[in-house]
Amino acid sequence: MQIPQRNILVLGGGLIGAGWAVAFAGAGYSVSVLDRDAAAAPRLASIWSVGRNVLAQLGALDPEAAAPFVILDYSELPAAPILVQEALPERLELKRAALVELESHIPSDCLIASSSSGLTATVLQEGMLHPDRLFIAHPCNPPYLMPTVELSGGTNTAPEMLGRAEAIYHSLGKTVLHLRREVPGHLINRLQFALWREVVHLAATGVASLADIEMAVMEGLAPRWISTGPSTVFHLAGGEGGLARFLAELGPAVEGCWANLGRPHLDSGTCALLVEGMAEIARGRSPSELAMVRNRAMVAFAQHFERAEVSCNINQTGGED
Amino acid sequence: MQIPQRNILVLGGGLIGAGWAVAFAGAGYSVSVLDRDAAAAPRLASIWSVGRNVLAQLGALDPEAAAPFVILDYSELPAAPILVQEALPERLELKRAALVELESHIPSDCLIASSSSGLTATVLQEGMLHPDRLFIAHPCNPPYLMPTVELSGGTNTAPEMLGRAEAIYHSLGKTVLHLRREVPGHLINRLQFALWREVVHLAATGVASLADIEMAVMEGLAPRWISTGPSTVFHLAGGEGGLARFLAELGPAVEGCWANLGRPHLDSGTCALLVEGMAEIARGRSPSELAMVRNRAMVAFAQHFERAEVSCNINQTGGED
Repeated sequence: MQIPQRNILVLGGGLIGAGWAVAFAGAGYSVSVLDRDAAAAPRLASIWSVGRNVLAQLGALDPEAAAPFVILDYSELPAAPILVQEALPERLELKRAALVELESHIPSDCLIASSSSGLTATVLQEGMLHPDRLFIAHPCNPPYLMPTVELSGGTNTAPEMLGRAEAIYHSLGKTVLHLRREVPGHLINRLQFALWREVVHLAATGVASLADIEMAVMEGLAPRWISTGPSTVFHLAGGEGGLARFLAELGPAVEGCWANLGRPHLDSGTCALLVEGMAEIARGRSPSELAMVRNRAMVAFAQHFERAEVSCNINQTGGED
Repeated sequence: MQIPQRNILVLGGGLIGAGWAVAFAGAGYSVSVLDRDAAAAPRLASIWSVGRNVLAQLGALDPEAAAPFVILDYSELPAAPILVQEALPERLELKRAALVELESHIPSDCLIASSSSGLTATVLQEGMLHPDRLFIAHPCNPPYLMPTVELSGGTNTAPEMLGRAEAIYHSLGKTVLHLRREVPGHLINRLQFALWREVVHLAATGVASLADIEMAVMEGLAPRWISTGPSTVFHLAGGEGGLARFLAELGPAVEGCWANLGRPHLDSGTCALLVEGMAEIARGRSPSELAMVRNRAMVAFAQHFERAEVSCNINQTGGED
């Protein structure tokens, strides 16, 4: 029998909810998924079957891990959960109604994490009995594979609750990113949309093919960003004077470059060009085949590439630009 | 004795010029570096010593590779080069004067590649005798380690010259990115400045610490972008309908997100905050120590991580969002 402190409840058994359930279950939590849809149980079984394999390859599967299971009603909840991970569709009224119902079935200090990418904790807290324990914990998909979780409290979230939540996500091996202020899109989506805006601009204005732009990121920028983030790149460009020297000498050039970046629109011509470019990138592979490539690559990356402890031996290095 | 078809001349023995010299020499070319500065020879020797070690670890060092050497004058040029890689400081008049002098010493069909990040081939071609063989070949630093080269012709560049150049960069193992139109910053710099603008906005408006934003890229986005570029991410978000479905359903949301991205300024307060955040990221490591971390990570990545041929075994995958 599981001890009560290890119980997790997931609201919604869609892709994100099921992915969360696999992440928690793989780490040894007892996980129930509340979903009244008949498709939920087979989907959860299928994602557990894939996900536990991934976690095993990552060396992150608890030997005592038990499969997550679907429940149809709160009466089936085996014990009081320590955390509820809400992963319902992105509709405010639906989420609010579910939160009201939820609060009547769980202890007042049970953590409630919303997976929402578009809503804020402050908005979701309205009308709650105990809003202090609600916050956003936004994963990348699939949650059992992707390493980051964005944690964002609302106006009424108690810092102590965020601390308890962080410890739980750390126990899944996640990197927790802390938002000090609520913004739509949190960090990850804003950053990838900022990059993609210039991708679309460069493709739409005929500067390069979408495939070559994709390669510029996949083979040029991304391998460097793994060890040298977007600010550190410019820190190194300043030589031993670092970012301070870079900003002093090249700050105006950076602002000039920013002013020159594109502001594209997704009109029908641009959309057609993007879809055509994407077909060239996909080379006949379906989205699910490409997702498999990504999953294999993420696992291989985690297995073989230890950023902090790379073992090859380079004794010195040249300067930077 | 080297055969003449393997001779390369590099103009300028600074960090980029010396790095190019190492890249060409490591691949078996006979490389001379024209630089009248007394510091050029020891710098070249030092960068060769580091760079050949890196190339050996990458399995990319020609067994017959000979060290590149500095020459002080065209009279010392051992044979006619097939390609001149210009890597002089980013000053138009200086580059133009060097190109005029250069043309009187080389055959009319010798390729001339400028490493410029800020000038265009069309501007550099003005006043040349044979402008058809001049183009931009922009590396990332250091050129012997970073995998991409951006190739950008000007108004007068002959396509045949670009074809010959591409074959030479391929012989160095480089990924060639083709610009169809000249733009300041080419692809790589524009893309990284687009991402960095939002990084600066998020830090400057207090949404998260610079260190947490750096982590969002290093641990969240970059590992995924290695196998799944910035457009493919949204292709997968469309499920089996791919990018077309994503754009149809979420195009307006993407444009809304774009409109909400920041437009920061590098005022003194923002610069101070960035420098402070960078100190937290660096954790006492100097820029040259961080550059060593990056070099080791790039080598480890190239050695261990084969994007196209990852060997672990995941049989299926869930869907996407």
